[in-house]
Amino acid sequence: MAATRSSDLVAELASFVEIPSVSMDPARRPAIRDAAAWVAERLAFAGSRVVETDGHPVVLAERIVSPDAPTILVYGHFDVQPGGDEGFWTTPAFAPAVRDGRLYGRGASDDKGPVLVALETARRFHERGEQGLNVRFLIEGEEEIGSPSLPAFLERHREELQADLVVSADGAMWRPSEPSVPIAAKGLLGLELVVTGPASDLHSGRHGGAVQNPNHALASIVASLHDPEGRVAVPGFYDDVDELAPADREALERVPFDEEAYRRSVGAPELHGEPGRSTIERLWARPTLEVNELRGGGAFTVIPREARAYVTCRLVPRQDPAHVFAAIAAHVADVAPPGVVAAVEEQPAAVPAYTIPADHPAVLGALSALRTVYSEREPLLVRIGGTLPAAVMFEQALSVKTLLFSFSTADENLHGPDEFFRLERLEEGVASWTELWRLLGDALRKTP
Amino acid sequence: MAATRSSDLVAELASFVEIPSVSMDPARRPAIRDAAAWVAERLAFAGSRVVETDGHPVVLAERIVSPDAPTILVYGHFDVQPGGDEGFWTTPAFAPAVRDGRLYGRGASDDKGPVLVALETARRFHERGEQGLNVRFLIEGEEEIGSPSLPAFLERHREELQADLVVSADGAMWRPSEPSVPIAAKGLLGLELVVTGPASDLHSGRHGGAVQNPNHALASIVASLHDPEGRVAVPGFYDDVDELAPADREALERVPFDEEAYRRSVGAPELHGEPGRSTIERLWARPTLEVNELRGGGAFTVIPREARAYVTCRLVPRQDPAHVFAAIAAHVADVAPPGVVAAVEEQPAAVPAYTIPADHPAVLGALSALRTVYSEREPLLVRIGGTLPAAVMFEQALSVKTLLFSFSTADENLHGPDEFFRLERLEEGVASWTELWRLLGDALRKTP
Repeated sequence: MAATRSSDLVAELASFVEIPSVSMDPARRPAIRDAAAWVAERLAFAGSRVVETDGHPVVLAERIVSPDAPTILVYGHFDVQPGGDEGFWTTPAFAPAVRDGRLYGRGASDDKGPVLVALETARRFHERGEQGLNVRFLIEGEEEIGSPSLPAFLERHREELQADLVVSADGAMWRPSEPSVPIAAKGLLGLELVVTGPASDLHSGRHGGAVQNPNHALASIVASLHDPEGRVAVPGFYDDVDELAPADREALERVPFDEEAYRRSVGAPELHGEPGRSTIERLWARPTLEVNELRGGGAFTVIPREARAYVTCRLVPRQDPAHVFAAIAAHVADVAPPGVVAAVEEQPAAVPAYTIPADHPAVLGALSALRTVYSEREPLLVRIGGTLPAAVMFEQALSVKTLLFSFSTADENLHGPDEFFRLERLEEGVASWTELWRLLGDALRKTP
Repeated sequence: MAATRSSDLVAELASFVEIPSVSMDPARRPAIRDAAAWVAERLAFAGSRVVETDGHPVVLAERIVSPDAPTILVYGHFDVQPGGDEGFWTTPAFAPAVRDGRLYGRGASDDKGPVLVALETARRFHERGEQGLNVRFLIEGEEEIGSPSLPAFLERHREELQADLVVSADGAMWRPSEPSVPIAAKGLLGLELVVTGPASDLHSGRHGGAVQNPNHALASIVASLHDPEGRVAVPGFYDDVDELAPADREALERVPFDEEAYRRSVGAPELHGEPGRSTIERLWARPTLEVNELRGGGAFTVIPREARAYVTCRLVPRQDPAHVFAAIAAHVADVAPPGVVAAVEEQPAAVPAYTIPADHPAVLGALSALRTVYSEREPLLVRIGGTLPAAVMFEQALSVKTLLFSFSTADENLHGPDEFFRLERLEEGVASWTELWRLLGDALRKTP
């Protein structure tokens, strides 16, 4: 039984990262296929195949050891964000480079490093002939563009994807120093506020003072979305928002969080938000409404014909995106000033929040595996302010929960320049995944 | 004494308009020189010369008939705005075309048609050997970029530009059907509001709810600049704003203004602005504050590090741009929400309002000239919502008033696609300028 040396794993990761599999760039289609082939090759022992979808292909594979054993479905993605401006990278985005125990390159952390952890775990499991757990794989190529083909793909392949649990290699631990298991991710609702005034742009000298300026109207609407203290001021926004259960609040309070260190890390003059809530509660457990873009007119003497705001809400469990959208639309209609028309346009692909109970066997298994590997540190239960559409899709299409068990870390410049992956996480990840799989073989076994 | 036929004047105008003398485009420097040469050639009888400035050249000329006669300085400009998107033009911006008694092309109305009126008036005056008025010319090439070189040029050439009055061929009559003389133009103050939050753009999923979003803060500041009814809500903004004098108010009330027709022309759902004031009073005689641009973040999940608003105020007589700027800066400091830094940056080249008394001999002369040429219609005294920096510069540098006596019309698509000039205005303009000059020879004569 030949153990793979860590240096081989690093070389493997580098060969994966150097494939520029940017899913949003049509010119990168060949690289997407190369990345799919790269994954399929490493799962050849599990009968891997590259399966077409309406968009980019998916790699499926499975190692079925027994019809009586429980089954997990491993999820990850081989597509990546664009490299962005090369000038901001120390070394090029698609020329992986190792420095100080980190591998730098686009996708190293999101999600190629974590996917390699899963692949290597499976390879060793197979090499050792381990039994007790059936493992299926679904590694997709559209995560960075919102997984548009995934729901239909899950419907079509529902039978062959049957599992008792999804284990996701996507997501990220929140800090390098604290092993953690996420038990919730926020939902996402995007919308655009569009304020329309005169029929065309007007000269602000010739027409100023005679008509409502769409920039003024948009500002007054946007200003009405929060109260001065930072609470969302849209009636009905908090309708279905539950207070944290006592156990969840205790878990939250156990999380070490230095507000001043956080403030310094984001470089804001001071922290700000919903009053009466700690920063970490606001980040993890409270819904938010953020105006991502304001756009109207230009730096010259114009009264623009329209002004727009792009808005995203992050939702918590039980909040229905459609209900929140309706509340915002009603509020905007209510506060829209005279002299303009204000419309609210919903963006596609709203996603509700995802949550898994803290006492779910998968979560307990994950905590136990982390305790074994990181013997010094008690793992934390954490929540994710971002959104994990795939976990929601698995629940909707396959009626199965997803355990988020990624070994990337939130500080690894995901989506930014100089993205990196901590190399010690490769072996720590494989050890943790191996331990988890062994535990899940028991924990998920159906009582006869 | 050979009268020029109108068809020759149209050909003259076409040859002027086809020179693409775009002052803001460095690639058009040769065209700027061509346009200067074109003007100088037509003033050769008056000893014209092209004089260098710190920027684009100026054409100077003079026809001095007697040291005892009064002197006017004729102002205009031979530079033009860019053509913009050719797709919006019926015929190309710099390929002048006559349709329905109009000459279409960039600069036809602003300011080449009106400048040609002045040049042709002078040519005929000279051809007929008319006496009684000394006429100087200053035709510049930087009006469309804010005349940056003009103040220093006026200082340097103060002696040779001495005059009793400037007569400007720039500006525009407000309507084709009503001959009019402007007696005021608003001042201009530009500024930028800059709201800075976190040190860099943040992911709105990971950090939403924890920090003040600069877009929210900017919106609340912008919303505070007006009250819901449309009054400017900046304390001190109206400090030095006088109510119209009774005679001025009467003149305003004599102006026929159909609010519903105006609303239709701008295509706004309804008119809006300072309550208790008619639309025409707001347009002509009340100061305004318009947010021309809102700009922050992008249509993706970001909390931007900064958000900006570009603001221009139009000022009325006695309002000091520096005082208004200070009032806005103090207000912004007062209302800026916590968690961000809000700054107000003044834009260069603020200009106070310009005004000339309604009973100034030049205004009376202009009204009289218009009565002679447009015998059917009593001319109106009007005000301009836009800004005429040159008139302010002449007052500051040469201590002389400017009569605005342009024969373009505000509806001739100045600065937009399909700019045009009404060709009947060429002969009407020359007739009016000729009559004006004859009247000014008397009206400006110093009492011995």
